[in-house]
Amino acid sequence: MTEVVVGIDIGGTNTAFGIVDHKGKCLIKNEIETRSQQPCNKFFDRLFSSLQEMFKDHEYQIKGIGIGAPNGNYYTGKIENPPNLKWGNVNLVEMVKKYYNVPIVVTNDANAAALGEMKFGAARKMKNFILITLGTGLGSGIVVNGELLYGHDGFAGELGHVIVEKNGRLCGCGRRGCLETYASATGIRRTAFEKLAEYDEDSLLRHISCAELTARTIYEFARKGDRIAIECFNYTGKILGEALADAVAYLSPEAIIIFGGLAKSGDLLLNPVREHYEKNVLNIFKNKVKIMTSQLKSDEAAILGAGALIWHEMNHRK
Amino acid sequence: MTEVVVGIDIGGTNTAFGIVDHKGKCLIKNEIETRSQQPCNKFFDRLFSSLQEMFKDHEYQIKGIGIGAPNGNYYTGKIENPPNLKWGNVNLVEMVKKYYNVPIVVTNDANAAALGEMKFGAARKMKNFILITLGTGLGSGIVVNGELLYGHDGFAGELGHVIVEKNGRLCGCGRRGCLETYASATGIRRTAFEKLAEYDEDSLLRHISCAELTARTIYEFARKGDRIAIECFNYTGKILGEALADAVAYLSPEAIIIFGGLAKSGDLLLNPVREHYEKNVLNIFKNKVKIMTSQLKSDEAAILGAGALIWHEMNHRK
Repeated sequence: MTEVVVGIDIGGTNTAFGIVDHKGKCLIKNEIETRSQQPCNKFFDRLFSSLQEMFKDHEYQIKGIGIGAPNGNYYTGKIENPPNLKWGNVNLVEMVKKYYNVPIVVTNDANAAALGEMKFGAARKMKNFILITLGTGLGSGIVVNGELLYGHDGFAGELGHVIVEKNGRLCGCGRRGCLETYASATGIRRTAFEKLAEYDEDSLLRHISCAELTARTIYEFARKGDRIAIECFNYTGKILGEALADAVAYLSPEAIIIFGGLAKSGDLLLNPVREHYEKNVLNIFKNKVKIMTSQLKSDEAAILGAGALIWHEMNHRK
Repeated sequence: MTEVVVGIDIGGTNTAFGIVDHKGKCLIKNEIETRSQQPCNKFFDRLFSSLQEMFKDHEYQIKGIGIGAPNGNYYTGKIENPPNLKWGNVNLVEMVKKYYNVPIVVTNDANAAALGEMKFGAARKMKNFILITLGTGLGSGIVVNGELLYGHDGFAGELGHVIVEKNGRLCGCGRRGCLETYASATGIRRTAFEKLAEYDEDSLLRHISCAELTARTIYEFARKGDRIAIECFNYTGKILGEALADAVAYLSPEAIIIFGGLAKSGDLLLNPVREHYEKNVLNIFKNKVKIMTSQLKSDEAAILGAGALIWHEMNHRK
């Protein structure tokens, strides 16, 4: 019997899950619709019956289950009113225990991604680093001394909600100027509108509908040399680089790892991030901190992260 | 024989040191001039001969030595070119080992102060908190999971050098807008000049020389009801409160403890800090994080901090 864990990444639309061995090999993986308008236990019924189906021809022993979920709280095992899931407060650990009576750990998706990089990806052998996910919003997982930083109540690492511009863009949290209103897939889209207003020159961006104007389109136009699209990446990188200079003053990490959809833009984003990070960071940190992208396959990264979470728990917290 | 440790707090002008028991009682204390223009070993000759003099009628067994020093690095045991000491790079652990062959630990003064509060002061039983020292500059010690956050190279916790105002006040570090150029004894003095320019009304501050215009004077005038002096505290509190809202998004602490000269201004500073902190913090943290002042006697706090550093080391890192 091969000892394995189950990694589950619950998203607002889809949920990815799979079987992960202790070397970070994703042996089986699948994806289902989350459908959070239905009760949470129905979701897990679907998930685990799909898992058992996948399982049946293999000799696996499930040692634990790791779950990455929006607003997942490591201390309580709950998800706490995530805006993109309709389940309210649910104790995932209690609920999943009814299916498999094994160790179960919950955290948010960015924290899970950080552990995935530490155990299987870009942060192997690192003990102090920051992971930034650039998706619809901006999430972060902070590792200090080889452990995730959860803080007093489990909500540490909200870098998306550091204020980078006083009286800046309105954020979903109700405040203004949060980092994620600039550095995220939705942030770069808002930047595009700003740049279209600021400059007068023609741009491929002027010839598409608002609905088509996505981070992906801006990326494609930038690759074609569109100056306003490139400027969108430069501005996003500037804001993110400046914010990371502050993050380093707090945490003195060995590296910062950029993860998620926007990270796939590569140097188009990373070059301005690095430039403005180095320009703004305190002297004692200059040329010390590596800024790099995730080293996990993007379709497995979230599953590996959730798997790493539970492997880490079982290995280090006995 | 009573088991004790030696706590040493090296400052640019004076050095305080003393004997601390495991309950945080400062049994003996003294202060000497640092005189860093002379070689470092001469300094320790003076310090330890004074210590032995104080010692001679007591039955103390020295179990360890803790040192708080500017730019003191926990990992290397060195002070690394602190601007207010002329010794350059010195390995304090190696040097002090020649006097007493016991466990010796070095860190910076803010980190030592944080451990002092955790073991003997306002942060007893806390595992996640931030200590802010408001002296000539702004220092910080961050405790995560009951341990100081040192980061990858020992320099974590530079909250004084987080940028709070783009293109703001010039800082000693060469950049602009660092938190400590606003929230510190020198920061509030700079604010006084700004406010004297901004407002036209009379103020006690207009009738003294620039040399007399210190944080202490501003405090005394504010206590007398001088409106511009009060405005200086309000502005300092606003900037600090906003910065602490960001700090909480990073770290999710149980409390923030304010320490050092300016902290003695009490509610004059703390009220605007709390107001602007609560106004700016992310919803999930509202009304959760205590903002309080140090609970150690000010003439012993630094010695107790250095003492706590080595007690902590010996108890938790065997």
